[in-house]
Amino acid sequence: MGQDKMSIFDRMLAGGTIDNNDPEMRLVWAQIARTIKLLSVVNTSTDINQIRGRLSEITKHKIAPSTIILAPFHTNFGQHIRLGKHIFINHDCSFLDMGGITIEDQVQIGPKVSLITENHPLAPSQRKNLVLNRIVIKENAWLGAGATILPGVTVGKNAVVAAGAVVTKEVADNTVVAGVPARFISNITEEQ
Amino acid sequence: MGQDKMSIFDRMLAGGTIDNNDPEMRLVWAQIARTIKLLSVVNTSTDINQIRGRLSEITKHKIAPSTIILAPFHTNFGQHIRLGKHIFINHDCSFLDMGGITIEDQVQIGPKVSLITENHPLAPSQRKNLVLNRIVIKENAWLGAGATILPGVTVGKNAVVAAGAVVTKEVADNTVVAGVPARFISNITEEQ
Amino acid sequence: MGQDKMSIFDRMLAGGTIDNNDPEMRLVWAQIARTIKLLSVVNTSTDINQIRGRLSEITKHKIAPSTIILAPFHTNFGQHIRLGKHIFINHDCSFLDMGGITIEDQVQIGPKVSLITENHPLAPSQRKNLVLNRIVIKENAWLGAGATILPGVTVGKNAVVAAGAVVTKEVADNTVVAGVPARFISNITEEQ
Repeated sequence: MGQDKMSIFDRMLAGGTIDNNDPEMRLVWAQIARTIKLLSVVNTSTDINQIRGRLSEITKHKIAPSTIILAPFHTNFGQHIRLGKHIFINHDCSFLDMGGITIEDQVQIGPKVSLITENHPLAPSQRKNLVLNRIVIKENAWLGAGATILPGVTVGKNAVVAAGAVVTKEVADNTVVAGVPARFISNITEEQ
Repeated sequence: MGQDKMSIFDRMLAGGTIDNNDPEMRLVWAQIARTIKLLSVVNTSTDINQIRGRLSEITKHKIAPSTIILAPFHTNFGQHIRLGKHIFINHDCSFLDMGGITIEDQVQIGPKVSLITENHPLAPSQRKNLVLNRIVIKENAWLGAGATILPGVTVGKNAVVAAGAVVTKEVADNTVVAGVPARFISNITEEQ
Repeated sequence: MGQDKMSIFDRMLAGGTIDNNDPEMRLVWAQIARTIKLLSVVNTSTDINQIRGRLSEITKHKIAPSTIILAPFHTNFGQHIRLGKHIFINHDCSFLDMGGITIEDQVQIGPKVSLITENHPLAPSQRKNLVLNRIVIKENAWLGAGATILPGVTVGKNAVVAAGAVVTKEVADNTVVAGVPARFISNITEEQ
């Protein structure tokens, strides 16, 4: 099936440019409006199970009971977030998931972490278009407080992203990165 | 008219130091109290029009219907924010606007962006005073996720501030800056 | 009294590793659940006295009337926060206080500042354990917008942490630090 027969949601997940004037953008805006309504409930929730339940409605996939998300949680879209088991996401994280965010089992995410799958072209006349690229956070990785993960990045298994790092490219399994932009700091071994 | 005859609000917009014990600071605190009440409504709103309407009450200027702000939105003051048309402000931005924030048409602002017009003196005994300086974001600029714009900064037309950058000085038209502190990265042309 | 006779709360404040499977972790989770409920009220409060009162319930210590905290305020735990007098904490700050956070009199904290007393081991099999270390912010220090203070850090008297800095080690009295990671920039004198 050619890309021109794919729905806008499939095209978003495939990555690349979505024209701001695409006729199907109205479907995206309808999802955004739905998410705003549901997030208002997530972010005034008073227990962990309520937060998980309401967020499952936003993502349109049931989130595992072993996964904990603390409110507030921010997402502009939400239905392209996929969460594994035994994940912990601390408060005030921001997921811009139009390009797809996959978080594997056992991942730990600190407060105020941003996962950004949405870019814009540099060309001024094209600036309003979306350029999407998926983020994957692999098993048992740990993203420190206030880290920002940019479009297209995969963070490897057991990897650690230091607090405040801005990650622009792949992080290898079992490594630590830090800084703006993030750079390799050290390898991780089980003896540490 | 001399500066000593100007209201505290005019003096704030003119820039410079406001003494923490200024007798008119009670007017500022009254505005802060008003903003706290109104923001509580903005940040539990369930649609984009409601957010825009409530925020217009805080800024005391009607925000154009083509401008979209996603909640939560944070401001300590609010009445010195001026927003143009066709602006998009993503969720969880923070505007400290006592010194004046002007955002021109077509600007795009990512999530968790901070615009800070309020400083304090370094001298310990003066530390509680305010040192204010206006921020201007020019037409069609794009501020990436988590960027921080500091007092007195103008971000030029079509400019791009990379995610996580801390901008301490002017950003020229049609340029990209990145890093902490932000430095020039490249020029922008329409062919990119 | 040996460490094995101390309550989990005393062990948290003493610093060091808390095993994720510690039998007393259920007491910690009970406190987390209590804090989530109370924070929901803090963050929909409509005046400064209400915010301070509700936050005093979370910290289990009465906060001085001269101390002002703007909502939203985020904490995962809360009962290990101790606040002095005449403190100002701007909106959207995040306090991960399991290891203990002490803020002395006259401190000013900008918006979106993170105080993080909670780490994890690098060893993948130990990654879920907590490694705690106290934060102290001394009298009249100023933490700029979006700064992050990491476990074990003391910020000295009258010190200034620049906006967006990530502070990994002690900041001396009367000095300015900036950057990621934060480095010494200058000394502070009363004449500045």
